[in-house]
Amino acid sequence: MRVIRSIKVMSEISRDLRRKGKTIGFVPTMGALHRGHISLISQAVKENDNVVVSIFVNPIQFGPKEDFKRYPRNFSKDAAICSMHKVDYIFYPDYCQMYPEGFKTYVTVNELSDILCGAFRPGHFRGVTTVVAKLFNIVQPDVAYFGQKDAQQAIIIKRMVCDLNIPVKIKVMPIVREKDGLALSSRNQYLNARQRRDAVVLYRALNKARDLVKSGCVDARRIINEMKKEINKINPKKIDYISVVDPYNLKQIAQIKDKALIALAVWLGKTRLIDNIIVRI
Amino acid sequence: MRVIRSIKVMSEISRDLRRKGKTIGFVPTMGALHRGHISLISQAVKENDNVVVSIFVNPIQFGPKEDFKRYPRNFSKDAAICSMHKVDYIFYPDYCQMYPEGFKTYVTVNELSDILCGAFRPGHFRGVTTVVAKLFNIVQPDVAYFGQKDAQQAIIIKRMVCDLNIPVKIKVMPIVREKDGLALSSRNQYLNARQRRDAVVLYRALNKARDLVKSGCVDARRIINEMKKEINKINPKKIDYISVVDPYNLKQIAQIKDKALIALAVWLGKTRLIDNIIVRI
Repeated sequence: MRVIRSIKVMSEISRDLRRKGKTIGFVPTMGALHRGHISLISQAVKENDNVVVSIFVNPIQFGPKEDFKRYPRNFSKDAAICSMHKVDYIFYPDYCQMYPEGFKTYVTVNELSDILCGAFRPGHFRGVTTVVAKLFNIVQPDVAYFGQKDAQQAIIIKRMVCDLNIPVKIKVMPIVREKDGLALSSRNQYLNARQRRDAVVLYRALNKARDLVKSGCVDARRIINEMKKEINKINPKKIDYISVVDPYNLKQIAQIKDKALIALAVWLGKTRLIDNIIVRI
Repeated sequence: MRVIRSIKVMSEISRDLRRKGKTIGFVPTMGALHRGHISLISQAVKENDNVVVSIFVNPIQFGPKEDFKRYPRNFSKDAAICSMHKVDYIFYPDYCQMYPEGFKTYVTVNELSDILCGAFRPGHFRGVTTVVAKLFNIVQPDVAYFGQKDAQQAIIIKRMVCDLNIPVKIKVMPIVREKDGLALSSRNQYLNARQRRDAVVLYRALNKARDLVKSGCVDARRIINEMKKEINKINPKKIDYISVVDPYNLKQIAQIKDKALIALAVWLGKTRLIDNIIVRI
């Protein structure tokens, strides 16, 4: 495994690999790797000749009051995980290289970026799409892997790739959960013992929604109300949203017809957690 | 020469060429090809194994009151010109393919897109950068050729390519002029005989500026005033701007220190013409 810190070197390696007819699987991350990331890496290793994992805590996707500074960083642990899982290249650029002085270009996916998490984190998805476009241009992957945990992000990236004709296939892998159901996230590290126990309420609320749908309830308002009741049992700091939306265009659904994405964002203390499920009728 | 109408086919051809180690030169155009375009094509042919010319009148770079509908279109004439000049592929997509239903992704280069022409054509450069990003992803060129006539466009595209790490080299070729000095433009076709005679005033004003600089005048305000006087001799419908700017970041210059881009946009009847020169001290 090689650690590449230079954009130029990374793109030359990718160009070389592609010239030789090798396929490149790519897993873009912000580090603090957990079993969710590992599931993406394993899939990439299974499906491609070479695998690149990028580790870059992307400043432009954090709001001014968000957790950019305290976001967990542990490169040597991440590198060990990558090495153990047969990653070929870690791409680990620094900020000055990614955003040199005079940087002023952004990729925006309108509408999709302003709802759900986007409504509470203005500029977040613009930061995500911009850095992902950059990383795709540098790494030139055949396939890139994202987690369903960030469902909105995956949908926005698919839209960007389609709209801008980026020659990359996007694969979205299922959410990996702790034994009690909590979705894996690098931000789970922020939780104290009490919050960690309470955090399972997101999964419990999603299960309640699934049960309601199974039992014939298709009314979004009722589902959301029941979920809210469940979540309020732990007295969270704040619920950003609980939404029932179309899994393709993220539009609000009043009555579930065939398939819906149920997504939520909840604050436990200073930690914002998100989770989601897809329900089918 | 092949005419390719499908995005998918074009990107497969490009991928194939690159796999074989062939270089691709790319000239993106809106058709209505003239000797300015031909100079780009000839340079591309000289420097690359294969040359792709795209012909696409890009709706999203026209304002609602602009000339999208009447913009000159003559595909068979353009195709003959391309064939004569040894183009290998014309990429000629239709609107529905380039902007399918649900399209919502845009590439924006902040600041640079809001000044000079951008101040008078809101959204224009966002349309340009978005379509050029798309075309680069489809055609995957090694080198792309642009004309210095659209100086601001060239600077914005260079900025985009740098900021988004797009693996394409940008070459900007000199302005090609008529015998009397009028810069070639597809929009010159709109001019009636009187306007065509008057149109040379843009070049005349730029020459006046160059002479002033040569004679030691470095004061932008004085240069602009003299140019304005010259242009007003033909009583134009409107002067959008006459500006003396830094040729790298397009910032206004009060006193020319080493190098400046002098650019202007003038309306003759319903036709908006632009031109520019670079002056050195």
